[in-house]
Amino acid sequence: MRAVDLIQKKRDSGEHSREEIDYLISSYTKGDIPDYQMAAWLMAAWIRGLSGAETAALTEAMLHSGEVVDHSYLPVKKVDKHSTGGVGDKTSLILAPIVAAGGLAVPMISGRGLGHTGGTLDKLEAIPGFNTALSLADFRRVLKECGMSLIGQTAEIAPADKKIYALRDVTSTVESIGLICASIMSKKLAEGIDALVLDVKTGCGAFMAKEEDAIRLAEVMVDTAQRTGKKAVALLTDMSQPLGRMAGHSNEVIESIDVLKGGGPADLRDLSLELAAWMFYLGDRCESVEEGRKLAQQMIDSGNALERLRLCIRLQGGNERIIDDTSLLPMAKSQTVIASPRSGYISSTRCRDFGVALAILEGGRAKKEDVIDHGVGLEFHRRIGDRVQAGEKLVTIQYNSSNKLAEAQDLVAAAFAFSDAPVPPPQLIRHIIGG
Amino acid sequence: MRAVDLIQKKRDSGEHSREEIDYLISSYTKGDIPDYQMAAWLMAAWIRGLSGAETAALTEAMLHSGEVVDHSYLPVKKVDKHSTGGVGDKTSLILAPIVAAGGLAVPMISGRGLGHTGGTLDKLEAIPGFNTALSLADFRRVLKECGMSLIGQTAEIAPADKKIYALRDVTSTVESIGLICASIMSKKLAEGIDALVLDVKTGCGAFMAKEEDAIRLAEVMVDTAQRTGKKAVALLTDMSQPLGRMAGHSNEVIESIDVLKGGGPADLRDLSLELAAWMFYLGDRCESVEEGRKLAQQMIDSGNALERLRLCIRLQGGNERIIDDTSLLPMAKSQTVIASPRSGYISSTRCRDFGVALAILEGGRAKKEDVIDHGVGLEFHRRIGDRVQAGEKLVTIQYNSSNKLAEAQDLVAAAFAFSDAPVPPPQLIRHIIGG
Repeated sequence: MRAVDLIQKKRDSGEHSREEIDYLISSYTKGDIPDYQMAAWLMAAWIRGLSGAETAALTEAMLHSGEVVDHSYLPVKKVDKHSTGGVGDKTSLILAPIVAAGGLAVPMISGRGLGHTGGTLDKLEAIPGFNTALSLADFRRVLKECGMSLIGQTAEIAPADKKIYALRDVTSTVESIGLICASIMSKKLAEGIDALVLDVKTGCGAFMAKEEDAIRLAEVMVDTAQRTGKKAVALLTDMSQPLGRMAGHSNEVIESIDVLKGGGPADLRDLSLELAAWMFYLGDRCESVEEGRKLAQQMIDSGNALERLRLCIRLQGGNERIIDDTSLLPMAKSQTVIASPRSGYISSTRCRDFGVALAILEGGRAKKEDVIDHGVGLEFHRRIGDRVQAGEKLVTIQYNSSNKLAEAQDLVAAAFAFSDAPVPPPQLIRHIIGG
Repeated sequence: MRAVDLIQKKRDSGEHSREEIDYLISSYTKGDIPDYQMAAWLMAAWIRGLSGAETAALTEAMLHSGEVVDHSYLPVKKVDKHSTGGVGDKTSLILAPIVAAGGLAVPMISGRGLGHTGGTLDKLEAIPGFNTALSLADFRRVLKECGMSLIGQTAEIAPADKKIYALRDVTSTVESIGLICASIMSKKLAEGIDALVLDVKTGCGAFMAKEEDAIRLAEVMVDTAQRTGKKAVALLTDMSQPLGRMAGHSNEVIESIDVLKGGGPADLRDLSLELAAWMFYLGDRCESVEEGRKLAQQMIDSGNALERLRLCIRLQGGNERIIDDTSLLPMAKSQTVIASPRSGYISSTRCRDFGVALAILEGGRAKKEDVIDHGVGLEFHRRIGDRVQAGEKLVTIQYNSSNKLAEAQDLVAAAFAFSDAPVPPPQLIRHIIGG
């Protein structure tokens, strides 16, 4: 087999066999295929697309380029959730403790934020001392002791994905459904899970802004999970505005604790419960999603979920007292308010720009090397469909440096659109695919 | 400007500005853009295509990556011919002396053969002592003294093309009309010519087997030449069977000398005269192509063209006595005959396979590093449309090693198809584009 022939086949819209995909990925990971040949193949695959069988083969080849974590020492089912990311999307911090408290194991290997989206690892690192860089041995130990552990990708997990992702980033071959699916799923399947719940965001704050693209990605990911023998469901959920009231790292930890204490905003609570319910159901903990929803609510009401989070923070080296005193989290020194320029109904938001504004204030990354300020944040006082008066608070900006404040303020202020007529609030859960 | 944005633009079917193409080519030539980014761009360009303006900009950017030879010391117009290559295609050896004898200058920078096609440089090197690796200074000296010189590409000429071609070869991005055009034209325009005659082959022995592809390539090359201020014409000519009776290096030198002595096969003579006529016309030596044809014939009849070839051979260090005694050329030791398996009319040939058979006998290259045996060859006794008897000679194979003889014999024998009904011979010159 020769790389040049495989490139030609994909260039000419051919479909690769499993053996061809295996050869391509294993040879590239070993360094036998150079970057320039993989770059040509990636562009051909981006333009011509990958079939369901090719995507599953690619996912498995990337998965098997590294270690698949063995959790056979755990007597319970292992489940996880993956979100395609957005603004204020902090459900992992809520549902992992709920599901662990409810009796399943959540071995969650997460990513960092890039561009306008936040990352679970970065949020956890707002907690003083919290270590997301555990070895696989420590990961297993924490998981065994508290049913959940949240860490970053290790060198052992899907090294092919790491190498290919770096190449896609510099060759304009990122936004391909097949390639995105293989990248996500190879890492998630390496966690050694039995079932996976996917939260695929749609709307202007999502990676896939168009609903049809998000649906297609959701279908391909569910199909790929099922082809590899895993249970999976995808919830297509709204990202036309931020999830919850809070964005920013400390902010999102605080809001997650609020939900685990029985409070928090309705949309965040509802989505967290729904995702947890599906995890209980696919992990065979409940007979139905409805029962899963009840169990999730019980885990909040009993305080068990909150205690599970406390235990996890302690086991991963963090300061567990933040649970009772969130002022121990790093917070911004200053704040300013964006007021509504007019009266009317909020009709839409340029949700992505909230994430961009946060990154400008150093609460996110424009490039991978950027250091994050965990204390900066945005608090959203109004949502789509709300009636507002001119001069009323829309957003509070929490910042440390006034350096680029004006730029962030302008972005946030310009992100709201208004209408004189009433506007219905967007539907939070749009579709359910698979399950 | 960033390479990643240019890759994305072409990926999304955008059209590049001249500045973008210049940035891409100059940065890549300098090594500021790595191979993997150029590979991704090449694949995007292969699939999405390049517009006429982009192709012209690419050609000029590649042209100006190196030296453009200055022939202002010559008082006459400089003209050249380029053929896209085929089997038995030796017209350069005939028309360069005709056109030089007729009063124009032919500064011909040629390539080597690869795969099933032969190359002018390789044919010339069948002549003992002939040096195709002249410096640009010696190239100018020979050109001044005899009106023609034939050399290989030097390091000064279009270095961007050299680097990009090597990358295309290993990334399955060779057969793209825009990229082919820019590669050919950047080198030809670097010769410092006023006009160019293109011989675009079509049929199964050609690089572009399909006539519609050949027409499109011809149109793009003529358009590109004209956009850069050069006169140009493309003749679309038949390559459904070999040109002339002879293939192989010494063989083709001998047949070329035959034509310059007033003999040779009709198809080779006609095409050589026609191409020379267009060179005279575009080089403002004649008022019409018809006059050019007469002038070309005069140069043969007078012996002036033959003497011009003799002078060129001498000036480039070759043994000029081969003109009078072709047995001084390297010849194969053995020969064998392929006989017709049946009676009937020859209806078609797999012309490409004759070239492949020649390469198998070491009279061509499967890869660039292969050494050529100039003495091996094929002589074709019958052509499409001819009536043959079973057992009659179709081809004589001249060979040195019987190592792979059987493989070559099988290919040659299987390359003929027959019909019981008469078949018209193919039309030699199919279309004329531009001019």
